[in-house]
Amino acid sequence: MVSESEAREIYASCIHFDGLNICKFSPEIFNAWREGGIDGVSCTCGLWEGFRDSIANVVQWKKWFEEHSDILMQAHNVRDIREAKTVGKTAVLLSWQNTAGIEDKLDYLRVFRDLGVRKMQLTYNTQNYSGAGYTELNDSGLTGFGREVIDEMAKLGIVCDLSHVGPKTSRDVIEYAPEGKPPCFSHVLPCGMKEHPRNKSDELIKMIGAKGGFVGLSQFGPHMKKGNDSTIDDYVEALDYVIGLIGEDLVGIGSDSSEGHGRPSDFMAWCNKDKGYARRLTPWGSEKVVKPLGPLAERAELALAMARAGWSEEKMKKVLGENWLSYLEKIIGA
Amino acid sequence: MVSESEAREIYASCIHFDGLNICKFSPEIFNAWREGGIDGVSCTCGLWEGFRDSIANVVQWKKWFEEHSDILMQAHNVRDIREAKTVGKTAVLLSWQNTAGIEDKLDYLRVFRDLGVRKMQLTYNTQNYSGAGYTELNDSGLTGFGREVIDEMAKLGIVCDLSHVGPKTSRDVIEYAPEGKPPCFSHVLPCGMKEHPRNKSDELIKMIGAKGGFVGLSQFGPHMKKGNDSTIDDYVEALDYVIGLIGEDLVGIGSDSSEGHGRPSDFMAWCNKDKGYARRLTPWGSEKVVKPLGPLAERAELALAMARAGWSEEKMKKVLGENWLSYLEKIIGA
Repeated sequence: MVSESEAREIYASCIHFDGLNICKFSPEIFNAWREGGIDGVSCTCGLWEGFRDSIANVVQWKKWFEEHSDILMQAHNVRDIREAKTVGKTAVLLSWQNTAGIEDKLDYLRVFRDLGVRKMQLTYNTQNYSGAGYTELNDSGLTGFGREVIDEMAKLGIVCDLSHVGPKTSRDVIEYAPEGKPPCFSHVLPCGMKEHPRNKSDELIKMIGAKGGFVGLSQFGPHMKKGNDSTIDDYVEALDYVIGLIGEDLVGIGSDSSEGHGRPSDFMAWCNKDKGYARRLTPWGSEKVVKPLGPLAERAELALAMARAGWSEEKMKKVLGENWLSYLEKIIGA
Repeated sequence: MVSESEAREIYASCIHFDGLNICKFSPEIFNAWREGGIDGVSCTCGLWEGFRDSIANVVQWKKWFEEHSDILMQAHNVRDIREAKTVGKTAVLLSWQNTAGIEDKLDYLRVFRDLGVRKMQLTYNTQNYSGAGYTELNDSGLTGFGREVIDEMAKLGIVCDLSHVGPKTSRDVIEYAPEGKPPCFSHVLPCGMKEHPRNKSDELIKMIGAKGGFVGLSQFGPHMKKGNDSTIDDYVEALDYVIGLIGEDLVGIGSDSSEGHGRPSDFMAWCNKDKGYARRLTPWGSEKVVKPLGPLAERAELALAMARAGWSEEKMKKVLGENWLSYLEKIIGA
């Protein structure tokens, strides 16, 4: 049994990588990462935006990297994340929750890859040129254009995320993805614990695992077994549920922290409408949502909950970060 | 029986509206329309282009309307088309074969409506935000965003064309379209005479007819019963086939003339790749295609073929133009 103090030591010494934050990014958040011992984060810097606004988002991040170089650095590969840990900074992997930013141009994938956007969700909630999100009327599956997007992302070393993607499109991508370049679910919860269209079925989780893909677990009360009564221990139970399906090497954290944004807020309303302004997609823009992992600055609590659940030091290290790094190595490189 | 000379007189006095031209537009084409007695034409001025290039296409047409105002005028409504006949000009109804030009903005529909783009195909051959074209891997059906596009087009008075749209998306649109604002197939051929994914089934033709929609017949040898051996008389036979399905009031001409473009040509290759540059979609970019209606300047031949088929004067006038105008009145206004 790992004791509480041992758990704190393990957390402090191991690499913790969080596979999705969609915070109101600011120096307050950057400091919260440091306080919370978060060594690497995949940060959403594109959701409904087209090309121009996606470029502007990247530029904002480049300015932040410069202004806050004492605590922040950009990650282009796994080495950068390990270095961040060594020098006491947080490494940011720029990421998209959509491929809207490339508009209709496959070549723009290369532009954003070169700028460091190394993880992209194929589509966010609705239909785009490549496939359908989980709230779409019908799931088109992976389109012909989508196949070219998947091929190009694999070639360029961009992670393909299927978290908000519809089940048919997800299945098609898992089957279509080139050998050795499996997609991931960066921030999901299992249907096996709570049936919900945003959650992933055991079948899909096993499919992505069998391909060597990855599953990051998100913290979204309403989609968990106990709803908004869920605690950090219920979160660890969800991790164990998915580990039961695909083993302890392909599972990690994808907190989906939205720290700093109010609920309701203009930002949440924008996320929750198709293309940022059209029809409303889910009830969650304004309703109560408990996020049981708690504030970023208190992320060490997760290690304590893992210890309470009887996890070994090795399992803790893997799920807190090493598994993400092993998966990222396959796609973006060591 | 209408004699050959009577047919020539009928053609000269009636309004002839062609529901689709995708020519290499130039003064030569404008003169060919006049020589051929073509009073109104729906002209493709957008296919894969996004917002900026679609605006540029409209601007080019505005310049042509100014430079060639002796023989050309823009049509914003049916009155404009009738006026063109009276003053001896050809009225051009600007049209799109895709909704790529609005990118992800519903509000851009209003911009292009105000500029006079009054007929838009929902999608061209592949998947877009609104639905799927007939060459797509799977047919998504009408998407949630597509419903908003259909609502907005109906409100703004823009014709919805389903010619290259997939069967499921076509069916969804026919069912979803607001009462009194039915979609059309502006340039199609019937599956009943030649089974082909680009052709429309009897079921779909009857569905669109039952809604008060419209069917314009195209001239594309490879999709006709006799293939590239098809003649102008075979074209009239195809008109009669569709009239047999939905009566003689909802059928007209949509020649799909591509006069001036070579085959192969850079333009055909561009049309024939997804988004103008990605995967190739059909074999027809370079292969032999006979267009049995012949050159635009010889369009009066169509009236002779109608007479040979035993058509009455009234039926000729309706199919040559009056039917299109009655349909357009419902959508773009008298």
